[in-house]
Amino acid sequence: MAAPGENLRINSDRLWDSIMEMAKIGPGVAGGNNRQTVTDEDGEGRHLFRQWCEEAGLTMGVDQMGTMFMRREGADPDALPVYVGSHLDTQPTGGKYDGVLGVLAGLEIIRTLNDLDIKTKHPIVVTNWTNEEGTRYAPAMLASGVFADMHTQDWAYGLEDANGKKFGDELERIGWKGEETVGDRKMHAFFELHIEQGPILEIEEKDIGVVTHGQGLSWMQITVTGKDAHTGSTPMPMRKNAGLGMARILELVDKIAWSHAPDAVAAAGHIDVHPNSRNVIPGKVVFTVDMRSPNLATIEDMEKQLAEGAKKICDDMGLEIEFEKVGGFDPVTFDEGCVAAVRNAAERLGYSHKNLISGAGHDACWINRVAPTAMVMCPCVDGLSHNEAEDISQEWARAGTDVLFHAVVETAEIVE
Amino acid sequence: MAAPGENLRINSDRLWDSIMEMAKIGPGVAGGNNRQTVTDEDGEGRHLFRQWCEEAGLTMGVDQMGTMFMRREGADPDALPVYVGSHLDTQPTGGKYDGVLGVLAGLEIIRTLNDLDIKTKHPIVVTNWTNEEGTRYAPAMLASGVFADMHTQDWAYGLEDANGKKFGDELERIGWKGEETVGDRKMHAFFELHIEQGPILEIEEKDIGVVTHGQGLSWMQITVTGKDAHTGSTPMPMRKNAGLGMARILELVDKIAWSHAPDAVAAAGHIDVHPNSRNVIPGKVVFTVDMRSPNLATIEDMEKQLAEGAKKICDDMGLEIEFEKVGGFDPVTFDEGCVAAVRNAAERLGYSHKNLISGAGHDACWINRVAPTAMVMCPCVDGLSHNEAEDISQEWARAGTDVLFHAVVETAEIVE
Repeated sequence: MAAPGENLRINSDRLWDSIMEMAKIGPGVAGGNNRQTVTDEDGEGRHLFRQWCEEAGLTMGVDQMGTMFMRREGADPDALPVYVGSHLDTQPTGGKYDGVLGVLAGLEIIRTLNDLDIKTKHPIVVTNWTNEEGTRYAPAMLASGVFADMHTQDWAYGLEDANGKKFGDELERIGWKGEETVGDRKMHAFFELHIEQGPILEIEEKDIGVVTHGQGLSWMQITVTGKDAHTGSTPMPMRKNAGLGMARILELVDKIAWSHAPDAVAAAGHIDVHPNSRNVIPGKVVFTVDMRSPNLATIEDMEKQLAEGAKKICDDMGLEIEFEKVGGFDPVTFDEGCVAAVRNAAERLGYSHKNLISGAGHDACWINRVAPTAMVMCPCVDGLSHNEAEDISQEWARAGTDVLFHAVVETAEIVE
Repeated sequence: MAAPGENLRINSDRLWDSIMEMAKIGPGVAGGNNRQTVTDEDGEGRHLFRQWCEEAGLTMGVDQMGTMFMRREGADPDALPVYVGSHLDTQPTGGKYDGVLGVLAGLEIIRTLNDLDIKTKHPIVVTNWTNEEGTRYAPAMLASGVFADMHTQDWAYGLEDANGKKFGDELERIGWKGEETVGDRKMHAFFELHIEQGPILEIEEKDIGVVTHGQGLSWMQITVTGKDAHTGSTPMPMRKNAGLGMARILELVDKIAWSHAPDAVAAAGHIDVHPNSRNVIPGKVVFTVDMRSPNLATIEDMEKQLAEGAKKICDDMGLEIEFEKVGGFDPVTFDEGCVAAVRNAAERLGYSHKNLISGAGHDACWINRVAPTAMVMCPCVDGLSHNEAEDISQEWARAGTDVLFHAVVETAEIVE
């Protein structure tokens, strides 16, 4: 492969302007965005992206999950395309960069190639995956999950939002249910640029995260049942305080994570206390423990420690406990060649970089199952994401997109 | 004082029938009652009670807080009345016995005195205190609190329910705003029978609780603030997990209560986690710690330990903490003479009994500030209350009412 020269750079002003233009569609209430999947705003964003792509000479394909594939031809008619992209949908109170940066960076690559009249052997396809966020229709990464055969399309179509509207109906309503069979496309490689959604790059002052793995995840919903009782008239020895049981399990969860340092993490983000009244000892607490590690054996070990330890805590307190696994995916190891292309690009361009494990799920995590895949990450302020205050600097966006550009173009092979 | 003979007993079938008749007004959805204060149902219950009282020869006074005072004359025109009663209002999903038993037991005393043609030196006044429950209009024990000069009447009138309706307006609407100035009545004594709302009597197989004290209470609302962050992409050392801080404080609360054994109790019944999403480390937790003891110095010591200990926990974790005292009342020591009258009655009648500290608040706790007061408790199944499944046996009601009868009549002095 012919690597591009280090003087080849994207136009960061143009990229930034496009991000800001896209952010005008489905504005949030606090400076971010509310452009949830298969809403009118999602449709409007798709039209703008399509217009930009067509202005850049790309031709569109849309699959039956609504995923958009914007193609720049390659010199070799038989070469599989290099795919690059992410998602344009946002959380209900989302930021301007999560997902959007990755899609518009793909477009900026095309624009730069056009500027410089560079041809590649492999076609390049800029991709906007449908419903990455999973807020309106859980689970997240829905269309890429169907693409990678993790879910069936019929099941996805039947998912309902909070108002009982079906995903398939809404996709049709906004006019983006395409004809292509999902997953039929074969890829030479897939690259995704994304903001880190964590604090490491900013704190360590690195421009680029070279994502080597995606963490596996286990979501265990725990129900601890004791006995509702009056906080005043129930002596301490007669209490079955489900809230205190929950507290001791949270301490255990923290210990389990630290005992699998440095890459394992765990916490409970969701906790519902019943009846949640100031003068009633909680009779029931339902909470979800989120445990992650890039190593499958570690996740399994953590799950076992949680099950045994939490059971013992509850037995000792006369509480009942039930476990339900409500979510999970296996750790991801990204493609060695694609990861090297990202790392080499950062080196060549003089950007500081470090290996990262993606803590969040991304479309790339599913696509990695069906194509050689890698991810580039850039810092975000304070690690903040899924929040209207999400922020990045134009310099960070430039560095990430430059690296993405070099990785994609090296993989797509410049034709001299 | 002339004590009544041990053969003087109330008519437990008549008492039980009246309880069941009252329970038909404002029925709940699961066998209990929803007869909240100053609703149409409350008005209907008051009319039935008034009718029964007038059939028993009592005359009615109603004060400006709507509290009903149903009077049986005494032989001595200068003697202050002995008051007996509780409240007819219920929780939205309340039981048939909480409060109601105490009011109708007062009526049963009158009916039995009438049956036996017994006269007392002191008048006896059966009382139905308005808004003991405090669910529709917080705080609890509202009318007795105004009676005991703990709140002003104007403030009570201005309280709003969840629909913005004012207490004073609703009291007038149902036709029970009386003329009497609240708190003008002087009392020789006040007795209240109530279900225990705790498990001790049933577990220890005692018929009667002789209530010597009311626990003092401290409600401390604690806000722990950390930092919302993604559960996957935030390394353990960079977390500020407000949920874990809350868990450690709950453990501390438990330790503080046990270290003040045997009478102190503490727990957190109300816990709200923000943003309460499975994949977001909690950035904020707001919860209320309920601590009680019959000893004021103990409560103050517990509050100090909580403030210092919770602050240290949060300091060590890089969390912010704020405290707000959102409720409290001082411990109550009931009148020695009235308590003795209750204990002597139980002894005389051959009922097993033990001293109890009331963990819950009751109208008697406020009235004790302005008159010699005591309480009788009877067991309830499983300690359950503020719940439609609340239950007692007719035998428990009989024993409690017999003891109340003897204590009231001994204090009111039988005229031979």
